Amino acid sequence: MSLPAQKLELPVDGRQSETALAVARGTARLLHAHGFCVVSELPLPSGRRADLVALDGGGQIWIVEIKSSIADFRADQKWPDYRLHCDRLFFATSLEVPCEIFPADTGLIVADAFGADFKCEAPEHKLPAATRKAMMLLFARAAAMRLQSLVDPTGPYGDWD
Amino acid sequence: MSLPAQKLELPVDGRQSETALAVARGTARLLHAHGFCVVSELPLPSGRRADLVALDGGGQIWIVEIKSSIADFRADQKWPDYRLHCDRLFFATSLEVPCEIFPADTGLIVADAFGADFKCEAPEHKLPAATRKAMMLLFARAAAMRLQSLVDPTGPYGDWD
Repeated sequence: MSLPAQKLELPVDGRQSETALAVARGTARLLHAHGFCVVSELPLPSGRRADLVALDGGGQIWIVEIKSSIADFRADQKWPDYRLHCDRLFFATSLEVPCEIFPADTGLIVADAFGADFKCEAPEHKLPAATRKAMMLLFARAAAMRLQSLVDPTGPYGDWD
Repeated sequence: MSLPAQKLELPVDGRQSETALAVARGTARLLHAHGFCVVSELPLPSGRRADLVALDGGGQIWIVEIKSSIADFRADQKWPDYRLHCDRLFFATSLEVPCEIFPADTGLIVADAFGADFKCEAPEHKLPAATRKAMMLLFARAAAMRLQSLVDPTGPYGDWD
């Protein structure tokens, strides 16, 4: 039987600029081409939110922090925290931001809304097994709960995050 | 800054009856009350699809098979396969289907579109660690990819599954 298509409304994300959203979209497409799927704005145990958390079929976890301007990067003193939650850490930015401002020991992705390229590889720092399991659970449950709140908007699933 | 809300269209699922969709929704709400989030129609390594796969914050995995009629249950000879992919196995059905048709060694949930109750507890058969990791990855990646295909419908994410 054929049921009517459901119209869903994605919550507005007022926290991110249009540039940041474009960089996120292009970066997610690049990561997909490398076998990773992505959850955006994932709250971590530290209380911070990771812009993009990427998970591949082997359980490898990358975090990508999006910086849409020089000021945006300079305002963030706490980005090294993200390393504790991933196997590789990247920044992603737009073509307009000079690559030189980013730290040498992180990866760098340059993106627009349609795609992205790796500019620098990221060093690997493998997660302990327990942290990997905790991150996989956070990732899985955030993605599933967001889908559930879209599919059943009158259900008990609360807001987007 | 405030961006316009995105209108999303959830793919039509022509595989499931209206009763099955109602039972799925009510069951997912019950599972949420017990700390589980849910991915529906998850393809398993065996090639079969699990109607609902539920994951709790500790990594426990339950599978719920939805049977919307006696005929629907009798047509399925392969349901014991699902046990290999979960810690507990349940059937879920509507109020109209007699509970007696379901096997005694599985759990049973009775649901409508608004909620559900456990009618029988399910015995526990703990997954091996490698199978649990594989199931968590399947669950996480399916949920993330479905969200990505909704958020970026012109991206490379393909169909719903």
